Amino acid sequence: MDFSSKLLENAVNEMSQLPGIGKRTALRLVLHLLKQPTPQTEALAESLQQMRAKVNFCDNCHNISDNPLCEICASHNRNERIVCVVEDIRDVMAIEATSQYRGHYHVLGGKISPMDGIGPMDLNINSLVNKVKEGRVDEIIFALSSTMEGDTTNFYVFRQIEAYKVTTSTIARGISVGDELEYADEVTLGRSIVNRIPFENSLKNS
Amino acid sequence: MDFSSKLLENAVNEMSQLPGIGKRTALRLVLHLLKQPTPQTEALAESLQQMRAKVNFCDNCHNISDNPLCEICASHNRNERIVCVVEDIRDVMAIEATSQYRGHYHVLGGKISPMDGIGPMDLNINSLVNKVKEGRVDEIIFALSSTMEGDTTNFYVFRQIEAYKVTTSTIARGISVGDELEYADEVTLGRSIVNRIPFENSLKNS
Ligand SMILES: [Zn+2]
Ligand SMILES: [Zn+2]
Repeated sequence: MDFSSKLLENAVNEMSQLPGIGKRTALRLVLHLLKQPTPQTEALAESLQQMRAKVNFCDNCHNISDNPLCEICASHNRNERIVCVVEDIRDVMAIEATSQYRGHYHVLGGKISPMDGIGPMDLNINSLVNKVKEGRVDEIIFALSSTMEGDTTNFYVFRQIEAYKVTTSTIARGISVGDELEYADEVTLGRSIVNRIPFENSLKNS
Repeated sequence: MDFSSKLLENAVNEMSQLPGIGKRTALRLVLHLLKQPTPQTEALAESLQQMRAKVNFCDNCHNISDNPLCEICASHNRNERIVCVVEDIRDVMAIEATSQYRGHYHVLGGKISPMDGIGPMDLNINSLVNKVKEGRVDEIIFALSSTMEGDTTNFYVFRQIEAYKVTTSTIARGISVGDELEYADEVTLGRSIVNRIPFENSLKNS
């Protein structure tokens, strides 16, 4: 791409560093900002700078939080002895949106991925293992995505805590509620048959 | 969406003001920035601010330019008496990328669109009409997109300049080079038949 302005080219180049944003999309977004009043660009730039400079992570669960403890960890209505292990804060938001879970979380900050150079030391694993060692947890629920990296990470954490007295579980996988069986992928469908539950139990959930 | 941090929420809200960026995508982009070193966010924010604050438009053609005249208008190798009328600078970039055009451009900055509240006065039409009135142009090439708004805009400009001595043309529409006829949309295919060219001419282009 040949730009008629260095200012424009810089903005497009920086914008296209974002994942999934190619040069064409970046140009479209940047030209949109040029058509809007200046305060919109100012607000965008400042909100990103403020966030990056001042962002804080919960001392207990590593969720993003503006306070030392996130709202979930600070709440008296949540069971701190049940800990759901997730990859990132989007998973916390997704599970919270269901209103089905009243325990705590532990945000690992990623998955073990040798291909991407991410090892156990790059993730918030030690603080989780310590919680278990100190007898502060009754149950660990693994809720990472079911990919090879997710499974590897689950297993790594499991090996660190299996010597201690703690129940471990993983979230159920199966056909989405309301989905047609014929459109489900084979692996999910297979797991949903293997992990079938007593029919009476399914009645309770509906 | 329920955010655990106001800083995060602000950043996501600002990001999702951009066209085609929903809340989910905005969150993904913003969390990506949080995983990158701080300078990346700084560079993005500053490039946007710099661009918005200091951007300049060519005095002659309204192309984005860091100088009073853009490189095209400042060049001695371009024919200033042929002016290609386009909607925005992406069109200039697209036509320049073909290396087939050696005239000047005139960037309208949009199309007449009553639905979006964009009238002739919101576009760079007067400066184009003045160029024609002053006898500085031999040919106007309309290269707006062939939508109702594009056609309306072409016609509006045409009516303003038809009294003056100037040739007008519009870019040829047709089946893309290399495209299968069966996959072309009917309107394009129809136009390509109506506007067929002598076979000898097609040989010159290949
Ligand atoms: Zn927390
Ligand atoms: Zn120019």
